[in-house]
Amino acid sequence: MTQIILGLDPGTAATGYGVVVTNDVTTRHIAHGCITTSSKTEMAQRLNTIAKELRSIIREYKPNIVAVEDIYFCKNVSTAIVVAQARGVLLQIVATAKLPVRHYTPLQVKQALTGHGRADKKQIQKMVKMVLGMKNVPKPDDAADALAVAITCAHSSKLESHIR
Amino acid sequence: MTQIILGLDPGTAATGYGVVVTNDVTTRHIAHGCITTSSKTEMAQRLNTIAKELRSIIREYKPNIVAVEDIYFCKNVSTAIVVAQARGVLLQIVATAKLPVRHYTPLQVKQALTGHGRADKKQIQKMVKMVLGMKNVPKPDDAADALAVAITCAHSSKLESHIR
Repeated sequence: MTQIILGLDPGTAATGYGVVVTNDVTTRHIAHGCITTSSKTEMAQRLNTIAKELRSIIREYKPNIVAVEDIYFCKNVSTAIVVAQARGVLLQIVATAKLPVRHYTPLQVKQALTGHGRADKKQIQKMVKMVLGMKNVPKPDDAADALAVAITCAHSSKLESHIR
Repeated sequence: MTQIILGLDPGTAATGYGVVVTNDVTTRHIAHGCITTSSKTEMAQRLNTIAKELRSIIREYKPNIVAVEDIYFCKNVSTAIVVAQARGVLLQIVATAKLPVRHYTPLQVKQALTGHGRADKKQIQKMVKMVLGMKNVPKPDDAADALAVAITCAHSSKLESHIR
């Protein structure tokens, strides 16, 4: 079954997105990019910009499923709270679009792409480039992360359908 | 100047709301209640329920300003993340309604209602009842908290206008 997967890496300053198409054989790159908002803008407005841009990304690429990265909250609690606010908005917009959502932890993403949990950002990005047969490593980092989440979703969907 | 203030106490299981009307002389109670979602429901759907119900509360009470409680994140990081997701959705809906937002920390709320920062929940609730001249302490707790945030906003707006 062919599926269009939208991967999202939530953030208030930058939410990465990556779109891939997958079937039983291969996973290909469609698009990637970043929704950015200025720290000079009021928080409610920034969240509204994220909502609007996600809506237009969904309209443009018509994904069948959305994969969202879980928050890695070990670093900094107040950062985690700001990221979680953006994540809440993304999930709500996905729900209004009536699309199914999958959640993946950073560890699951690392394991799906490199086979182990100790991979660093650069290794993940190289694997994204390889798996999708891209000429260059996708930029910026948040967009590469979003593609990695989309690939993780593609792999686990394949696994699920093999088990079935 | 008469203002209708909507106070919000964000949460995924329960988001409290409280509506007050204030002028230079007095602050009166209009409504309070709780948006609740079931933990059995998928997170994106729960956030969408919160979004829908907040939209209908805004339509019904037509506030001029919205006051939102900041997250008290000392207790538990994963709880803070879940609350922050709901808070993000609330802020985004307020932004689409083009309403100004004010943010208050739990400490600011305590100080506005009791004059000091060591007040407990019960003391705050009694003060909400007194200030608004209500017969009983408003229930549930999240709705009482939301009224407390709305009163805090009313007090600080008065202060601002006096300074001007």
